[in-house]
Amino acid sequence: MPEFPITERTRVRRIPKRAQYDKDTIYRILDEGLVCHVGFVEDHQPVVIPMNYARRDDALILHGATASRLLKYVQAGHPVCVTVTLLDGLVLARSVYHHSMNYRSVVVFGRGRLIEAEQEKLAALEVLTEHILQGRWRDARKPNRQELEATTVVSIAIEGASAKVRTGPPVDDEDDYQLAVWAGVLPIQQQALMPVSDPRLRKDIRVPPSISDYRRTR
Amino acid sequence: MPEFPITERTRVRRIPKRAQYDKDTIYRILDEGLVCHVGFVEDHQPVVIPMNYARRDDALILHGATASRLLKYVQAGHPVCVTVTLLDGLVLARSVYHHSMNYRSVVVFGRGRLIEAEQEKLAALEVLTEHILQGRWRDARKPNRQELEATTVVSIAIEGASAKVRTGPPVDDEDDYQLAVWAGVLPIQQQALMPVSDPRLRKDIRVPPSISDYRRTR
Repeated sequence: MPEFPITERTRVRRIPKRAQYDKDTIYRILDEGLVCHVGFVEDHQPVVIPMNYARRDDALILHGATASRLLKYVQAGHPVCVTVTLLDGLVLARSVYHHSMNYRSVVVFGRGRLIEAEQEKLAALEVLTEHILQGRWRDARKPNRQELEATTVVSIAIEGASAKVRTGPPVDDEDDYQLAVWAGVLPIQQQALMPVSDPRLRKDIRVPPSISDYRRTR
Repeated sequence: MPEFPITERTRVRRIPKRAQYDKDTIYRILDEGLVCHVGFVEDHQPVVIPMNYARRDDALILHGATASRLLKYVQAGHPVCVTVTLLDGLVLARSVYHHSMNYRSVVVFGRGRLIEAEQEKLAALEVLTEHILQGRWRDARKPNRQELEATTVVSIAIEGASAKVRTGPPVDDEDDYQLAVWAGVLPIQQQALMPVSDPRLRKDIRVPPSISDYRRTR
């Protein structure tokens, strides 16, 4: 299984037994997430902004308005950090000290480049759209030239990445297992609720199965 | 309603009509989230790490192992950015271009300080524990001196903050409303599933209502 090299930049420092460096684990997490948090630096001040994203091969794609400060920073080739976190549960131990969370997170380091060619831009927007909802690129009206010009799309080559994963029940101190405290995991899941049709939706249009049967976990 | 001043650092640049600067909105979002993304800088490289957190008055509290690189950075007083994002739905427009997300996010800027005094440290850990699950501080075994010493707790005074919120249906180009494309919102919610008892749980202990009735939205 291909792995990302463990470097000074990507090595997981805290609780290294939770670290994973194989592409399969890292890409599954990236492919399940809907929101990433992008870190950049402005006048020595770190700034973290939530963004939509999608993975294509060994790169992450971001998009936004052409005026976006973040995207200008990324396309200038500065180093960025992109982090995706999936929360899976509250780990409720008998002691406060051993409380934890079950989660899967990925930290990506890389540098971006602007996607300029129209065909590549369209292909990247297709990947972004399909990441959110499979089949949506086919169903929705595609971007016209004016919309394409108003959109900046960048590709961030993944130079290094690591995943950190915690699963399973709490781990308490041996002496604490006898305490009269409930312990276990409260699973947390991001779920889709009933779709809400646009008030201006044409009366003859039904919710398609791609939306009524939406499931994020792949 | 008290507001954070709009500064060069906190002003929302993209789609300013979604910006909110009042404490009430900002603190509601911070109080609902379970995971924040902390941005710091190491050798000009931005790094973004997911963390648990809690708000106390006008400060955010983080904790972790004493050896934590991130916490050492924070307690040294460097500027940090802490971002919390709650995803509320996929906004599916008739055109790809107008696809969006409903979300509530907060970006906080501030500087940290180490909480050293034992009583203040315990109080901060209580806030962190109660943020995850109300009543848990009372129910679980409290930290002993050894556990307290192994834990670093920092408080980040909120110097500036802004929220960004999108709600409601998609907004399409007028010409597109006649297209035969379903449009609307697919609401997304982080939900708690059935609690899973620790395999080593004492047989006489039942799941308490604070856990079986867990709801995040306040």
